[in-house]
Amino acid sequence: MGMTEIFNSALRDSVLRSWIEVAEGSDFPVQNIPFGIFTTPGGKPRAATRIGDTVIDLHALAISGFLDGLEFDHDLFSCTTLNSFIALGKPAWRSMRERLMLIFDERNPALRDSPEKRVEILFPIAAVQMLMPVQVGDYTDFYSSIEHATNVGIMFRDPANALLPNWRHIPVGYHGRSSSVVVSGTNIHRPKGQTKADDAEFPEFGPSKQVDFELEMAFITGKKTALGQSVSTQDAEDHIFGMVMFNDLSARDIQKWEYVPLGPFLAKNFGSVISPWVVTLDALEPFRVSGPKQEPAVLPYLRFEGDHNFDIHLDVFIQPENLKEQQVCHSNYKYMYWNLAQQLAHQTVNGCNINVGDLYGSGTISGPTPDSFGSMLEIAWKGTKPVKMPDGTERKFINDNDTIIFRGYGVKDTLRIGFGEVVTKILPAKS
Amino acid sequence: MGMTEIFNSALRDSVLRSWIEVAEGSDFPVQNIPFGIFTTPGGKPRAATRIGDTVIDLHALAISGFLDGLEFDHDLFSCTTLNSFIALGKPAWRSMRERLMLIFDERNPALRDSPEKRVEILFPIAAVQMLMPVQVGDYTDFYSSIEHATNVGIMFRDPANALLPNWRHIPVGYHGRSSSVVVSGTNIHRPKGQTKADDAEFPEFGPSKQVDFELEMAFITGKKTALGQSVSTQDAEDHIFGMVMFNDLSARDIQKWEYVPLGPFLAKNFGSVISPWVVTLDALEPFRVSGPKQEPAVLPYLRFEGDHNFDIHLDVFIQPENLKEQQVCHSNYKYMYWNLAQQLAHQTVNGCNINVGDLYGSGTISGPTPDSFGSMLEIAWKGTKPVKMPDGTERKFINDNDTIIFRGYGVKDTLRIGFGEVVTKILPAKS
Repeated sequence: MGMTEIFNSALRDSVLRSWIEVAEGSDFPVQNIPFGIFTTPGGKPRAATRIGDTVIDLHALAISGFLDGLEFDHDLFSCTTLNSFIALGKPAWRSMRERLMLIFDERNPALRDSPEKRVEILFPIAAVQMLMPVQVGDYTDFYSSIEHATNVGIMFRDPANALLPNWRHIPVGYHGRSSSVVVSGTNIHRPKGQTKADDAEFPEFGPSKQVDFELEMAFITGKKTALGQSVSTQDAEDHIFGMVMFNDLSARDIQKWEYVPLGPFLAKNFGSVISPWVVTLDALEPFRVSGPKQEPAVLPYLRFEGDHNFDIHLDVFIQPENLKEQQVCHSNYKYMYWNLAQQLAHQTVNGCNINVGDLYGSGTISGPTPDSFGSMLEIAWKGTKPVKMPDGTERKFINDNDTIIFRGYGVKDTLRIGFGEVVTKILPAKS
Repeated sequence: MGMTEIFNSALRDSVLRSWIEVAEGSDFPVQNIPFGIFTTPGGKPRAATRIGDTVIDLHALAISGFLDGLEFDHDLFSCTTLNSFIALGKPAWRSMRERLMLIFDERNPALRDSPEKRVEILFPIAAVQMLMPVQVGDYTDFYSSIEHATNVGIMFRDPANALLPNWRHIPVGYHGRSSSVVVSGTNIHRPKGQTKADDAEFPEFGPSKQVDFELEMAFITGKKTALGQSVSTQDAEDHIFGMVMFNDLSARDIQKWEYVPLGPFLAKNFGSVISPWVVTLDALEPFRVSGPKQEPAVLPYLRFEGDHNFDIHLDVFIQPENLKEQQVCHSNYKYMYWNLAQQLAHQTVNGCNINVGDLYGSGTISGPTPDSFGSMLEIAWKGTKPVKMPDGTERKFINDNDTIIFRGYGVKDTLRIGFGEVVTKILPAKS
């Protein structure tokens, strides 16, 4: 076809640009190449990537021959989840990402100059619906921000001993509910459940009065292990496909009554929302930074080499019904005390097996200053510092019909790579 | 084919017997008809039921026309899990079970008198390998035995206030790890992890010294719900396909150090073992009994009508390497304080969605007397009452190369219906 030569001759360089328009401030330059699942009206779900505001149908791209020469079955892009593609492993993700960068390189005319094929392959983001990118097998939620754990400890336990004794030794985590992990754009009804006032004799039942967001990132595993096998911190990133932003919705009042001694349950499983585009670790490489110093020294299985934190700006907005959005937080994924390599090493050190498509939440990402706290619980400090909205109303937690919006991106020199948005509206409780 | 008339004329009655031999004391009379997945050397996985010690290949049965007239695709029995069959819903499970009872009724000659077909369809249990019966989506573990919760409270908290304040109001539960749920016969390496002695300054890392079984039953859901939907106690059993026995292996020393504040994690996810045969609720109908009185009265969403406890004898044996097994517990599923209808109503009351194949463990099933306690933690009372083994050695917990065996069955008059066994050997920690 002659295409291979074109691909091979198109050199990747630091100023790689696409022939697809990428607006100033877009999260999706040709250097990103995230993966997701989309559908169009009347169409079937299929895999996609995105450049600027253009969604690229990977199945249509494969049918047109643009993926020829890659050593995997292109039919796997006609799919409801990315799991089969992810299961191919890192060499396949890499060769796919590189091929896509080359197809959309501004110097490559193959698709650029074929209007008939462009119509079949390219869709404006406004014309598609994004779906869950992966079938989540297991979902673990960590608790790895020292600022968040400290804030919670100060508010609910002892300011002088805010961190529990195990916190600096263990990347504390718990198992969450996979079934209720949903994609951005899914609106969630306020959950009902049991709560008990401190001075009440008995619990009562009704809608939660303390629905909150938790600003998190999450990684998705791309390589399974057998039961009994462990993954070292050194190998951990080979098992990670990519990352998403993650809103781990929480009902604080339900959690308070239910969580001793076995942890959060109904307070956390009424809906957890991820961004539709999975950004690969390769795309996040420019934003790699070192993390906080860990003291005391961690046990050998948690020691690591190199940098495993990422400088990703994370912004949270609340948009009351019919009003403009108001920023309530700007945090950063770089604040994480425990990094993703340590989290995966800990998850598997006892022989627990992992599968392709598992989701591992970071825990709420709070920074050192109040404007960087990653939940309303902390921002409004247990209700004592309500946040003013544009209409003059106050927020201690999330009101009915408030929309919660997360945005996240890394910036290095002129390069910006991001995750887009996680958007969810809290609907009134079902009657 | 004339077979339909034969089926229709074969009446079900209380003394229904099969032409397949069922030994005295078998868990698998023709009234049971459990479902599982099996394979034979060189063969593919397929669905099965069992009568006596005979495994019946449902795919081969379908190919031979014995399932004709049932309104579902018989190809679904050539499968690695029962999920697609289960998803058909209760009417399909019921018609399948009834058809199987009729095919194997001693008065029905159709298969009985066809030696060629019997060779294709019937396998001795010793000649097959049982596999995981379902793909587990989410796994929840409840904590619903008041005797177990009380024992743990006495040992680790305050004997005068053994039950936590929420326990009589909430069927306390937490999310477990689905990936490490495995079928009986899977041996599990002793997990490694962090533990900390009370008088130590820092935690240490190594093999758990306190590996324990937890005697549980678990139900498997057979009908999905949408996010935001709840299941009432009245409707709960329509969402339940059947039950298995369940060994929720635990590492008590790892749990002690890790579980505050977010619950058990690595202490529980190194292997959880289920019995291979899923026994339907229909088959358990004869063993339905009322449960303990719940005081104080539960909230309206947890109230229920009818009996939702089941009189299932549960026996636990430890078999040290090369020795005969020794019984360490005989408990009963009827002791459960919270029943399965309440558990499912609680799981979904906040809108949490369920899927076909989810697993819901009861929590450790302890009875009122020490010989009915459902874990070594309780039986040996935190190590103060070690159990003597046949070779004179003692057990406070499980030793390397000990095999743990659960057996469970109901008896009503002359009818015995059971679950067979859950068997797992604890192998030494990997080096």
